[in-house]
Amino acid sequence: MAEKITPRSENFPEWYQDVVLQARLADYSPVKGCMVIRPNGYSIWERIQKEMNDRIKAAGVKNAYFPMFIPESFIKKEADHVEGFAPQVAVVTHAGAKDLDEKLVVRPTSETIINSMFAKWIQSYRDLPLLMNQWANVVRWEMRTRLFLRTTEFLWQEGHTCHATLDEAEVFTQRMLKMYHEFAENVLAMPVVPGMKSEAEKFAGALRTYCIEAMMQDGKALQAGTSHNLSDHFAKAFDTMFLDKDGKQKHVFQTSWGVSTRLIGGMIMTHSDDKGLVLPPMLAETHVVIVPITPKAGTAPAIHEAADRLAASIREHADAQALPYRIGVTVDKDDTKQAGWKFHEYELIGIPVRIEIGPRDLEKSQAVFTRRDVGVKEFVPLADLPAKIARELKSMQSELLEKARTHRDQNTHEVDDYTTFKKLLDEKGGFYKVPWSLDRAAEEQIKEETKATLRCILLDESFKPVQAGKPCFMTGKKDGTVMAIFARSY
Amino acid sequence: MAEKITPRSENFPEWYQDVVLQARLADYSPVKGCMVIRPNGYSIWERIQKEMNDRIKAAGVKNAYFPMFIPESFIKKEADHVEGFAPQVAVVTHAGAKDLDEKLVVRPTSETIINSMFAKWIQSYRDLPLLMNQWANVVRWEMRTRLFLRTTEFLWQEGHTCHATLDEAEVFTQRMLKMYHEFAENVLAMPVVPGMKSEAEKFAGALRTYCIEAMMQDGKALQAGTSHNLSDHFAKAFDTMFLDKDGKQKHVFQTSWGVSTRLIGGMIMTHSDDKGLVLPPMLAETHVVIVPITPKAGTAPAIHEAADRLAASIREHADAQALPYRIGVTVDKDDTKQAGWKFHEYELIGIPVRIEIGPRDLEKSQAVFTRRDVGVKEFVPLADLPAKIARELKSMQSELLEKARTHRDQNTHEVDDYTTFKKLLDEKGGFYKVPWSLDRAAEEQIKEETKATLRCILLDESFKPVQAGKPCFMTGKKDGTVMAIFARSY
Repeated sequence: MAEKITPRSENFPEWYQDVVLQARLADYSPVKGCMVIRPNGYSIWERIQKEMNDRIKAAGVKNAYFPMFIPESFIKKEADHVEGFAPQVAVVTHAGAKDLDEKLVVRPTSETIINSMFAKWIQSYRDLPLLMNQWANVVRWEMRTRLFLRTTEFLWQEGHTCHATLDEAEVFTQRMLKMYHEFAENVLAMPVVPGMKSEAEKFAGALRTYCIEAMMQDGKALQAGTSHNLSDHFAKAFDTMFLDKDGKQKHVFQTSWGVSTRLIGGMIMTHSDDKGLVLPPMLAETHVVIVPITPKAGTAPAIHEAADRLAASIREHADAQALPYRIGVTVDKDDTKQAGWKFHEYELIGIPVRIEIGPRDLEKSQAVFTRRDVGVKEFVPLADLPAKIARELKSMQSELLEKARTHRDQNTHEVDDYTTFKKLLDEKGGFYKVPWSLDRAAEEQIKEETKATLRCILLDESFKPVQAGKPCFMTGKKDGTVMAIFARSY
Repeated sequence: MAEKITPRSENFPEWYQDVVLQARLADYSPVKGCMVIRPNGYSIWERIQKEMNDRIKAAGVKNAYFPMFIPESFIKKEADHVEGFAPQVAVVTHAGAKDLDEKLVVRPTSETIINSMFAKWIQSYRDLPLLMNQWANVVRWEMRTRLFLRTTEFLWQEGHTCHATLDEAEVFTQRMLKMYHEFAENVLAMPVVPGMKSEAEKFAGALRTYCIEAMMQDGKALQAGTSHNLSDHFAKAFDTMFLDKDGKQKHVFQTSWGVSTRLIGGMIMTHSDDKGLVLPPMLAETHVVIVPITPKAGTAPAIHEAADRLAASIREHADAQALPYRIGVTVDKDDTKQAGWKFHEYELIGIPVRIEIGPRDLEKSQAVFTRRDVGVKEFVPLADLPAKIARELKSMQSELLEKARTHRDQNTHEVDDYTTFKKLLDEKGGFYKVPWSLDRAAEEQIKEETKATLRCILLDESFKPVQAGKPCFMTGKKDGTVMAIFARSY
């Protein structure tokens, strides 16, 4: 509590770590690269799960659960997949006091184990589309880890679907990307750029990967969600086939898509400040904390009673307003802590609205209102507070999004040549919109020389790459260039 | 679909497996002992999670998430714990393309990794009680597995709490057992006997284990939930200490408690029948299916419209009744399937209420109502159906519990001697209430000779063992005998 948060301007990565640890969102564990998600962080994940689950189910997808262990031979069945994931897996070689005949890989993702079941369940076109999702832990052995953003074990949802045609799979892949886009903006208040990954950056085993990319306050990019068109790559590896209407056996076409606890890290780096966590109301469990100020002995009972009454009327009004979440209101009557300590604590852990009420306020039938992101105290008549709070929570949600969008737009630069790009990137960071030739060697060279990567190829309304009509900013190639975003990233 | 379910009377274990597989609740996976939970089964787990989570949070417990991997040395720190779990663990020896310096155990339960964090977080008495829970997958390498009942990987919740005194820990251990008891009866409609495990059967590392034991339709027992008073055993192993009010450093006293996906297996074996799954309405996602009967061409539009109107009014009425769950109503308009096929299917997957409506019914403003557990068709005026359905769902929930309780009571026998016990056990199965001397060697002998185990020692209202006041049914010892239940079990 008494620790100081490193200011963002001084050291952004240290600021991030300070916020996560001091707000008790997560902690380092004794197992290298694995984190503990503490209650303050896990309640955010529960809100994300609830909102995402509603959207997934509305798309007709059903939840299921597949084993965490995958026979090593499965991982090897799809050539690109094994190349991508083999270096990252954790392997169980010993179980039940015996060496295993076949080693088991702890899932880094579940395409293979799920296809082994799909192959068994799917018989005919009547079984399609088959739309499933699971909420699970996955493991990818990472060299450099960072709380929430990149951990050896993380929590996520992974959707897996089967379709009769490549077109249907493509439509569903796009639909899920749009769902993630809407979710990031409306729930996390995090503006994102939707796009397509390059061949070098796409999912190991996919035909095509779509993604949403967010910009953090330091101008770096964060991949916040991906949706893959797997074509029939895994279906061929696992013989996942169906009898079509025309009487022919065909391979299914598949999609997979996922978001993870990384979203919590992205949300923190989008909104929080030097005082601690700033939490969009959609993700809060407690939205309002009322701090009774009881300087003189004997004032407490009347103030506490007024605070309780106020809490009840805030809840009642919020219910009537049908907010898109259940409002959480607490009254902090703990008399072992000073008011100043409490203000600091609630700013640190990101309670969206703080109300103070003391004897003089009570005399004037008012209280002090402070919104976490704005930080300005306002005296408000008690009778007006419930309506004001419901209104301000809505405003806060949309203003956080707009503020982040403005920051993103102000730090997105259009450049046409590599020299300017390198210069600006070092000076300002941010996103770079450039004409791009899709040259894989050039992409690798840019990464080596600048540490910037191709975040995504921009798409038009119909998910086709936006044509640049200009020479490639790096290679100077003229034909078929598209618009792409390069940036340094997490 | 066309497969036959083995009747219970013929072969109970085969019946169980047939129901689980044919109702598509779960399936065998390619990994030995691991199951796939299919959407029909997972939706039951989601309902269990929701209801249990509400109760856990109401007890002031907060959800968190701890790493799945546990350093091997941690498991060895508590002597009884390592003895109990070492033979069952899966071990990761290799990760990120390297051999690990220290092997990692996949959690069989999380007391050890959680204590390593508690030791860091807890400083003073102000930090107590510390009440946490996690929803997670765990792995215990089992020789003989059975879908839901005993699988190598399973899903569960595990609560872990720290208290300043042994008394407080004991009170909380009992509170969580009462919560499980209430949950089993009110949500799963599964009557249970609460009790205490013997020294031989208690949790590895606990001072004392309380449990709830259910009786399946074949008379066998199923342990459905456990709550452990861990005393300071793990606190001592991990130095989990706090500065007490008296200025002294003391070890905390702890509890842990859990229920798992095994509950789904217990629920199936409590209620289901030779036609398939019988699902308590509290656990259903879809409560009512309306099957339009459209024998003649041209009748479909009017019947479908009537069915949709009926569905809407059932939903509306249920909302007004404030049922303890959101009612699910579907109209099955699929014209590629016969009505007979549909009836069979919905009985198999356990939809609590089926409504049929055809042209003649519509003329008479009526429909056919059938409750899954009762199986008798009734003609009911359309106007009366919404109220009848809400009423019948409530009745079904309580009648399933009462029916199971009657079965349990009729198959619970009080015997005072071992010869009668052995004879009755072979003839009738069921539970045996006996005077018991707490002799560990005798307990082992009974297990070897009869395959029956001590399910629990019966407790009075204040959680003290019920004194038998009779000689032990096995050893004849006279002093200090208590009442206990022996039975064969899953």
